[in-house]
Amino acid sequence: MSDLANLTSDESSPALEDTLEAAAWRHLDRKTMPPRALGALERLAVRIACLQGTLSPTLHKPVLLLAAADHGVTNRGVSFSPREVTWQHSLNLARGGGAAGLFCRLHGIDLVVCDVGVDHEFLPQDGVVDCKVAHGTRDLSQEPAMSLQECLAAMSWGRRKVAEIARCGSNVVLFGEMGIGNTTPASALVAALTGLSVDQCVGAGTGMGPAALEHKRKVVQAALALHGPPSDPLEAMTCLGGLELAFMTGGALAAAEHGMLILLDGFIVTASLLVASRMDPRVCRHVVACHASAEPAHRPCLQQMGLEPLLDLGMRLGEGSGAALAWPLVRAAVEMFNGMTSFSEGGVVDAVTPIQQALAREGL
Amino acid sequence: MSDLANLTSDESSPALEDTLEAAAWRHLDRKTMPPRALGALERLAVRIACLQGTLSPTLHKPVLLLAAADHGVTNRGVSFSPREVTWQHSLNLARGGGAAGLFCRLHGIDLVVCDVGVDHEFLPQDGVVDCKVAHGTRDLSQEPAMSLQECLAAMSWGRRKVAEIARCGSNVVLFGEMGIGNTTPASALVAALTGLSVDQCVGAGTGMGPAALEHKRKVVQAALALHGPPSDPLEAMTCLGGLELAFMTGGALAAAEHGMLILLDGFIVTASLLVASRMDPRVCRHVVACHASAEPAHRPCLQQMGLEPLLDLGMRLGEGSGAALAWPLVRAAVEMFNGMTSFSEGGVVDAVTPIQQALAREGL
Repeated sequence: MSDLANLTSDESSPALEDTLEAAAWRHLDRKTMPPRALGALERLAVRIACLQGTLSPTLHKPVLLLAAADHGVTNRGVSFSPREVTWQHSLNLARGGGAAGLFCRLHGIDLVVCDVGVDHEFLPQDGVVDCKVAHGTRDLSQEPAMSLQECLAAMSWGRRKVAEIARCGSNVVLFGEMGIGNTTPASALVAALTGLSVDQCVGAGTGMGPAALEHKRKVVQAALALHGPPSDPLEAMTCLGGLELAFMTGGALAAAEHGMLILLDGFIVTASLLVASRMDPRVCRHVVACHASAEPAHRPCLQQMGLEPLLDLGMRLGEGSGAALAWPLVRAAVEMFNGMTSFSEGGVVDAVTPIQQALAREGL
Repeated sequence: MSDLANLTSDESSPALEDTLEAAAWRHLDRKTMPPRALGALERLAVRIACLQGTLSPTLHKPVLLLAAADHGVTNRGVSFSPREVTWQHSLNLARGGGAAGLFCRLHGIDLVVCDVGVDHEFLPQDGVVDCKVAHGTRDLSQEPAMSLQECLAAMSWGRRKVAEIARCGSNVVLFGEMGIGNTTPASALVAALTGLSVDQCVGAGTGMGPAALEHKRKVVQAALALHGPPSDPLEAMTCLGGLELAFMTGGALAAAEHGMLILLDGFIVTASLLVASRMDPRVCRHVVACHASAEPAHRPCLQQMGLEPLLDLGMRLGEGSGAALAWPLVRAAVEMFNGMTSFSEGGVVDAVTPIQQALAREGL
C-alpha cells in the first residue's frame, strides 16, 4: 500500500473527511464545465477521492474475482438450468468465454475464476483456481446450507484471494458469481436481513413463469421458517447462504480493510455484500453499485446500503458482467477528476463564478 | 462501403428485416447465458445487426464531430456564461481538453471540432476545422436566427464532414456541440416540432435559478409567437435553430444515407436529430440514444423518436460527452453479439431449451 493508506483508513476523523470532500468538490469546480454538469460521474469521483483520502485518486489493476459453487436447494426445482451448468460454465468463463470473459478481455480486467464449492473436480489445466470447501451446499429449506466451519472456510478463501490481488498491486476488485440456483439463497438472505417480504425478494432468476416462481417463494418461505430470524449475519450466511456468497462476503471485508474499491455486480453479489455490511458497516463506503439488476429486490437492497446504481440496462446475468460493463465509467470518473482541464489550463474564462453569482442574486 | 451496403439500404423489404431480426435473436439465444439476460445490450446489438443487414455487425473508427457556434439570443441574457466561452472552450476541446477531449482520448474516439459559426477567427494551428458560415446566428426572438442560405450552408458542411469520415472508413459518428446559449434554440425547436409546452421544453441549461428560467421561457415564447408554427422542419431550423444545430441535422441525414450508426448525445443534439428525423424518418433507425440528459424535455423527445437511452447519470454538459461515455457499451454490445461463446463453443449444455420448455409448460 502507498502513502494513501494513511488516509484511507476508516478511522480517519469525520472532520478530515468533510474537509477532503469539500476540497474534492472545489477541485471539480475548477474544471472547464458548468458546476455539477457530469452528474453521477462527479459524485462517484468525489466518493473515490474521499475513500482514498487524496485529491489524486488512482485505480490500479482491476480484477474480477468470480466465485463459483453449487447449491443443495437445486434438488427442490428452484432453477430450470441443470446443475452441471455450474461447472461447465465456470470452465467456459475461465477460458475467456461467456459475457464476463468477453467484457473483461474488452476492458482490460483480469478474470480469476475461483471454485469455492462446485460439484465437479477441475483439472489443473482448466484455469479454475482451487478454493474448494465442499461440493456444494445442503438444501437450505431442510437444514443449514453450510456448517459454521464451511462458511468460515469459504469466507477465509475470499479474504485470502483479495489479499493476494492487493499484494499484486490491485486496488479495485470486482465480484462476480456462477452457481445454478443461487438466486434462492440470495433471496433468503435478503429477506432475512432487510425486512423485505419474500414476495419482494424472489424474482424470476434465469427465467421462470408464475407457477415456478410461486414454488420458489414457498421454498424460500420454508427456509426462513425452519431457521427463524438469524441472530447475526454470520448465522444468516451459514443457514441460508452459499459457498460462493460466503467467499464474496469474506472478500469484501478484506477489500475494505485493504482500502480497495469494490465494484458490485447484481443481486447475488449484493446479497453477499449486504451480509458483509452487517458485519462491518464501513464496507459500504468502498462499494460502487455498478448496475440495477432486473431482480426485483436488487434496487431496494442497494437503497438500504445507500448506493445508487450506475447502469440500468435490465440485465440479470451475474458473472460480474454488470460490474465489468461499468468499469469504463468508473475509470472515466477518476480520469476526469485527475486529468480534465481546469479553466486556467484550458484558457477558458471561469464560467462558474458568474453562474454562482447569479444564483446568489436569486437567493439560491 | 462494403457488401453490407446492399442490405443496409433503407429500401430493404420489411419481410427481409423481420427475417433478419428473428435470425439475430436466434443467434443470441445460442450464447452461453439465459435468454435475454443482457437486457438493453441485446436489444442494441440486434438493432445494429438489423441496421447493417448482417449477423456479423462491425463498428469502425468512431468519430465525434463536435460542432461549435454562437447565438444571437445570448444578447437576451439566456445564459450566465459569457459568449467568449464558445471559442475558448472550442479551442480547449480541439487541444484534447474538456470532458469530451478526455473521454475521446480514453475510449479511442477521434475528435473533430468544427467551427460552424463561432464569433472568433481561429488560427490554422488551433486544430479547429473551418466550416464557418457566419459569426453566429441572429436573435431568434427578434428575427429568423439564420437566412435560408446560411441554414443550408451549415447543413451542407455537416453532410460534407460526415461523408469525409465515411470515406476514411468510419461507420460510427458521434455528434456533439459547443455553443453558449444553445439550449434556447434547442428548446424552441423541440417546442415547435413536438407539441410539448414551453414550460416542459425550457430547462436550466448550464445552471439557472427560477427567475432566470422564467426569463428564458419568455424569450422562447416570444420566438415561437414571432415565427408562428413552422410549415416544415427546414423553416423551423432556419427561424429557431443554430448553425451548429443545422450542421448536425445535415450530418445526420448524410450518416443515415451512408448506413452509419449515429450516437446521440444530450438535448441539443437530440433537437438537431429531431429536425433531421422530420425531414427523413428513416434517420431514427440509425440512432443510438446514449444518455438521458438532465434537461427536462430530453426524455420525452427521445420517446417521440422511439429511442431508449443507455445511460441515465443526470448529466447536462453537451460536447458529445454522454455519447463518448456510452461508446464502450455500444462496442461491448457488438463484441458480445459477434464474439461471445455459444453453448456448443463453450462446452455448456443448452440451458435455454429447458427454460423455454418449462415456460411453454406454463403456457407462456
